[in-house]
Amino acid sequence: MRDVAIIGVSQTKFGELWDVSFRDMITDAGLGAIKDANIEGGDLEAMYVGNMSAGLFVNQEHIASLIADHAGLTPIPCARVEAACASGGLALRNGIMAVASGYHDIVISAGVEKMTDVVDPTPAIATASDQEWEAQQGVTFPSLYAMMARRHMHEYGTTREQLAMVSVINHENAAKNPRAQFPMEINVDQVMNSTMVADPLRLLDCSPISDGAAAAIVCPAEDAKKYTDTPIYVKASTQASGSLALHDRKSITTIDATVHAAKKAFKIAKLTPEDIDTIEVHDCFSINGILAIEDIGFVEKGKGGLAVEEGMTRLDGEIPVNPSGGLKARGHPLGATGIAQAAEIVWQLRGEAGKRQVEGAEVGMTHNIGGTGGTAAIHILSR
Amino acid sequence: MRDVAIIGVSQTKFGELWDVSFRDMITDAGLGAIKDANIEGGDLEAMYVGNMSAGLFVNQEHIASLIADHAGLTPIPCARVEAACASGGLALRNGIMAVASGYHDIVISAGVEKMTDVVDPTPAIATASDQEWEAQQGVTFPSLYAMMARRHMHEYGTTREQLAMVSVINHENAAKNPRAQFPMEINVDQVMNSTMVADPLRLLDCSPISDGAAAAIVCPAEDAKKYTDTPIYVKASTQASGSLALHDRKSITTIDATVHAAKKAFKIAKLTPEDIDTIEVHDCFSINGILAIEDIGFVEKGKGGLAVEEGMTRLDGEIPVNPSGGLKARGHPLGATGIAQAAEIVWQLRGEAGKRQVEGAEVGMTHNIGGTGGTAAIHILSR
Repeated sequence: MRDVAIIGVSQTKFGELWDVSFRDMITDAGLGAIKDANIEGGDLEAMYVGNMSAGLFVNQEHIASLIADHAGLTPIPCARVEAACASGGLALRNGIMAVASGYHDIVISAGVEKMTDVVDPTPAIATASDQEWEAQQGVTFPSLYAMMARRHMHEYGTTREQLAMVSVINHENAAKNPRAQFPMEINVDQVMNSTMVADPLRLLDCSPISDGAAAAIVCPAEDAKKYTDTPIYVKASTQASGSLALHDRKSITTIDATVHAAKKAFKIAKLTPEDIDTIEVHDCFSINGILAIEDIGFVEKGKGGLAVEEGMTRLDGEIPVNPSGGLKARGHPLGATGIAQAAEIVWQLRGEAGKRQVEGAEVGMTHNIGGTGGTAAIHILSR
Repeated sequence: MRDVAIIGVSQTKFGELWDVSFRDMITDAGLGAIKDANIEGGDLEAMYVGNMSAGLFVNQEHIASLIADHAGLTPIPCARVEAACASGGLALRNGIMAVASGYHDIVISAGVEKMTDVVDPTPAIATASDQEWEAQQGVTFPSLYAMMARRHMHEYGTTREQLAMVSVINHENAAKNPRAQFPMEINVDQVMNSTMVADPLRLLDCSPISDGAAAAIVCPAEDAKKYTDTPIYVKASTQASGSLALHDRKSITTIDATVHAAKKAFKIAKLTPEDIDTIEVHDCFSINGILAIEDIGFVEKGKGGLAVEEGMTRLDGEIPVNPSGGLKARGHPLGATGIAQAAEIVWQLRGEAGKRQVEGAEVGMTHNIGGTGGTAAIHILSR
């Protein structure tokens, strides 16, 4: 199989985008990536779109062809791929596979979600959990992650303040990211005194409801310099599944799908966690920022809270996590997140991340999960 | 890239399956295919699931990992792919690509839809059309296809009786198919006198609301004889996109995505329509049984109605169409249809189709479309 490179990326501003329609939002992201890659739309041979639930959010399935039509890309083959909040990661992975295999030369992988057009997005989001065993019993995502957080506190002595620090660091970074939904700093007291959502998680532990889109263009590594002076190479692209329902797991403080996908990614890339200069992790709730660095292997299981408290994950720390602001502060339009993570890592590795630049970043990683970890997609990228 | 073979297929009975849950239905289909392929579940390396809208029909997204979990297949990578009613065709194509590329050796491609758990499936089905330009104006699928039928009658003199014959022939075949939703014969008078749905289309011109699932297992062609004496080889797997909304098309009596995907498939397979011994076409409404044989190239544009009237598409005709009973009479659980079509062709080419066997069938084809043709997926299979 061929090596693959990312030659162009783009992300819309994330937020409550009342003035942009679903199809315009994703087309804007796609055009941005096309421009960034120095190609023409007609060069694209296939499209994968990550989207969790346009059916429930905007009453539209069949979105990949819709987007191709709106963007003037027909008749290229295009598919929506879905694994809840990991849909973007899967879109990137399928695009990479289509190029690595030789099926196509230039492919666009995009992600999009428009979540603010419904009165209450909670029932739609709950469809990422196990409907029969979780959602129908009234369990929502904050409560599922609250159980994971409570158990982590019980097993490892993780503190409420450590959880808060995940959000504080995310907002520190988001304040330097013009595309972030919440580009302002917050402090631990503000998190600790914000509205209770599901004990122990409070409002400022939770990622927001967001609209947004992102896109990435991949091509064979050997061709990448034709289009850009700074191609970013795909060192590994992996994916794993795990049980949707929490009660089916050996432990609810470890996400097995993350462990499997990360191990496989390091093996394929012939790298270790020490080689990673920066990572975008899937911290839809603050506890997940701690689970992720443990499950991927940056710290021992149970030590994630302390690592965050001690500043390990800060922009100037040992392993800067979520320089973009993460799901908490950049925003979390479900299907777009996996692609936005890759876009951030591409900007970091190119040295184009402005005030949030991780100095000297040469190898980066993305970690995108669906639901409470029923799916995990991992990418390792390098200059 | 490697050649690929189908070594196992399965289909549940299609119908109103009140006593089977979504996850049990698709797991049944998967287990059937595993048994048919003479493999163990643990041999599967990846899964693609075609599904149009479990979100709207059973309030469940994130279905691929859910199924993997329920079937004991975690942590293999698994993805849902969606392009409305062509979702099954895309799942098959992505499974084939994953094997052809060398990413995986044994992959299961499945399709599933449970449509009868909602009071009114019409709004969910309408999300396959262009929401802003069609569905929100009150247009539903019968009315979209009615416009296509009316225009075809106007342009080419296609008659109401010819449309009826598409359904009559489908039911002739379904009567010989134990897995069909409506295994009984009907006559032209019954179609012509059935309830009007959207002029000129009547109830018996329309495919039903169905529950059902199907699965297919693919592996490298060079390994196929290890598992089965009758591997069925994939000669071409193609896909194309077109505009979702009818008003965006040059003509509403030609489905461009079908034309593109079919042309490409014949080119890749180095075959012509004359080489095809039998085909499963996507006749969600009777008019589509006529459009399909024209757009794929079995007959000249405008001559499809006459060909059907003259018996060309009958089981003993020149090109037997839908030996399974087609979408009309086998049933049409949206995401399952593309895989069920492939299963039928596999049975036909193996000579296992019982009373509906097309004598001496050596090369077969499937034609699966999404919406009114925003997506088309074509497969050519051979002994």
